[in-house]
Amino acid sequence: MPGISRRGASLPASPIRKLAPYAESAIQRGVKVYHLNIGQPDLPTPEKALDAIRTLDRRTLEYSPSNGIRSLRDKLTGYYSRFGINLSQDEIIVTSGGSEALLATFLTCFDPGDEVIITEPGYANYLSFAKAAGLVVKAVTSRIEDGFALPSAADFETAITDKTRAILICNPNNPTGHLYSPEELFQIRDLVRDHNLFLISDEVYREFVYNGKPYVSALTLFGIEENVIVVDSVSKRYSECGIRVGMVVTRNKEILEGIMHFCQSRLSPPLLGQIAAEASIEGTELYSEECFNEYKARRDFFIEGLNKIPGVYSPLPEGAFYTVASLPVKNAEDFCRWCLTDFCWKENGEEPEENGGIRFGGLIPGPEKKEPEFIGETVMMAPAAGFYANKELGANQVRMAYVLKREDLARALKVLEKALEAYRKVEAGE
Amino acid sequence: MPGISRRGASLPASPIRKLAPYAESAIQRGVKVYHLNIGQPDLPTPEKALDAIRTLDRRTLEYSPSNGIRSLRDKLTGYYSRFGINLSQDEIIVTSGGSEALLATFLTCFDPGDEVIITEPGYANYLSFAKAAGLVVKAVTSRIEDGFALPSAADFETAITDKTRAILICNPNNPTGHLYSPEELFQIRDLVRDHNLFLISDEVYREFVYNGKPYVSALTLFGIEENVIVVDSVSKRYSECGIRVGMVVTRNKEILEGIMHFCQSRLSPPLLGQIAAEASIEGTELYSEECFNEYKARRDFFIEGLNKIPGVYSPLPEGAFYTVASLPVKNAEDFCRWCLTDFCWKENGEEPEENGGIRFGGLIPGPEKKEPEFIGETVMMAPAAGFYANKELGANQVRMAYVLKREDLARALKVLEKALEAYRKVEAGE
Repeated sequence: MPGISRRGASLPASPIRKLAPYAESAIQRGVKVYHLNIGQPDLPTPEKALDAIRTLDRRTLEYSPSNGIRSLRDKLTGYYSRFGINLSQDEIIVTSGGSEALLATFLTCFDPGDEVIITEPGYANYLSFAKAAGLVVKAVTSRIEDGFALPSAADFETAITDKTRAILICNPNNPTGHLYSPEELFQIRDLVRDHNLFLISDEVYREFVYNGKPYVSALTLFGIEENVIVVDSVSKRYSECGIRVGMVVTRNKEILEGIMHFCQSRLSPPLLGQIAAEASIEGTELYSEECFNEYKARRDFFIEGLNKIPGVYSPLPEGAFYTVASLPVKNAEDFCRWCLTDFCWKENGEEPEENGGIRFGGLIPGPEKKEPEFIGETVMMAPAAGFYANKELGANQVRMAYVLKREDLARALKVLEKALEAYRKVEAGE
Repeated sequence: MPGISRRGASLPASPIRKLAPYAESAIQRGVKVYHLNIGQPDLPTPEKALDAIRTLDRRTLEYSPSNGIRSLRDKLTGYYSRFGINLSQDEIIVTSGGSEALLATFLTCFDPGDEVIITEPGYANYLSFAKAAGLVVKAVTSRIEDGFALPSAADFETAITDKTRAILICNPNNPTGHLYSPEELFQIRDLVRDHNLFLISDEVYREFVYNGKPYVSALTLFGIEENVIVVDSVSKRYSECGIRVGMVVTRNKEILEGIMHFCQSRLSPPLLGQIAAEASIEGTELYSEECFNEYKARRDFFIEGLNKIPGVYSPLPEGAFYTVASLPVKNAEDFCRWCLTDFCWKENGEEPEENGGIRFGGLIPGPEKKEPEFIGETVMMAPAAGFYANKELGANQVRMAYVLKREDLARALKVLEKALEAYRKVEAGE
């Protein structure tokens, strides 16, 4: 039988999703799992978007144009102008989420063997798509002890070779929450200009900036207008990750044409998602403000709570809704898996009874039932090692999203503390 | 400024969509355009699917699992069993349309430089995605004079080298409408087995077989269970191309895992589309039968009409809803563009007046208006050259989809005949 290719075998399992089968099995055993692993907001999608779907007035759900519905691209130009970004609708190509925007960019701008510089820890899926596109990732490391600030220009210079074609940033950063300062962005602009590189800027968290500082989009950087390609998405800002509507934005005509050819091959972005996205863009200012305030409150609450747990350290994220924290464990991936397979905590020290035999250290799945009896709680986190290109880094770190309700975050913090206490004994071999 | 990559520059414009700007501009001038270029059915989406969308009962449009919603995959196993294909839901990964299914397969199964054998004319987007994935396409030519039957085993053998990793078929075929006979499929099975290749089978037109012969899915071929990867989609069978729901189906565990890693990187397929797709699968037998009968009637009507036009020849397609026809022109791409830029026909020989000055041979765009005054009719077709890997083939052929209402097909045939008459003078330099 024919086997997988070297490329296919090199595609990593997502650190965000690869523990999902363990979580599913824990849930089937009756464990309540707090999902800190994934940036799946629980805030409602704007009513206007849901209404647009519910009042759908079409007989046939037909293809949309390959670059997206014109009226959606029109509304997007209005959206960007609110951020001081002037665009024509032809400079926007609508994609199936930010993911496809990134993949289309990789497949259009680069040849196999080309090098792309990424800061690590970086969004794990950059690494997968780079492998899929045959690119070589050069990682420049940001460090937890510096609050994951942008590495120095000298660190970047060292990484640049004659095969380097682009610098890829995520601002505000997933997974670290770091917001690039204007000075940091000018430093990147100079590198990009001096070495004639692309600057790919993932700005899907543009609206989630908590430190009061102004947001600087790569699209407003002077002198590199033709170098910049922005990857964007409505997923997070309107809490509609499932509709799969993202976009590539660039003023580089040659790149626009190339990406358009790729997009013609995949025919069109999702029609229903585009209808929901278009309805989300205007008249949702109050919604956005409420979401912002809620995420900021969650951040303050969650990061303070994390840092109170003995041995845990998290910098204060300035944007997005993630943090990378270090835990008092040797191997965070082992710990994250253990939390799902071997651990669950029940308040008041009650031990689970007749429920499948689950307790600390035990794993005997009970009979399958539709609604399993509650036996306790655990947390799911994403091991941070998968966000580093250098395999020796981040072993004791996890990425956590603070997108749950505050009462759930409070429970999750408590459960995490209990898990770390129990795991200390496991690591000690007791 | 940084430029496009060699790979990006090699991505061809879609032959189906690249003339779209000319069509748009014709429409703005007041020309009614009959879209024979694209397989965008005008039949309604099943009411059940539209209802599922209109009664959407969710507050948050969240990510779905990377391999698709479980209940959708459950229903799909039921769907496949109707065709004698027994699958578990874990052997199905839901994708953003058949397009993503194909791209994920290419990126997972092959390394750059690997060779894939495709019959030509073949679906144009196979060629684009192959370029994006760095694959080398070896084309085996089927000929209009043979009704586009599968080339002989000897032709395939000649194309196989030590770099060949797969044979890709589309059955029933887009663009030719050819249905592979059991004997042809056995011939392919033997080649695949003897050379340890993948067989990628695009079966999105499975339900559109008009010659009364049984449909044989590659998933039912004995002895190559682990070699087969089926690309599928709900787009055409439920007239819901815009929802972007397709699937990869394979029993090869290693490939499933690799494709799953790719799919985790792009997070999830479209949620709303999956809801519509799930509602389309069961209780729509009558709908499917009506669609089938309508397409069959359109095929009979359209192909007969085509062959009555002097100099035009089309084989009778046995499946799907396309045909590749030869036209009495030197260069079909020039002709197709001319139909949009220079031609429009008004019945009764009336000449357009005060409408922007458009007539045979003229092209003076009038003032922009919202609802331009009707000035005549034309047809849009896809030049077939883009469906051939060998650039010297198919120059006088076009691909046409017969998905319009019969009265529109009748008009389109009449307009095509008039256009060919007029173009004869253009080619003669009169």
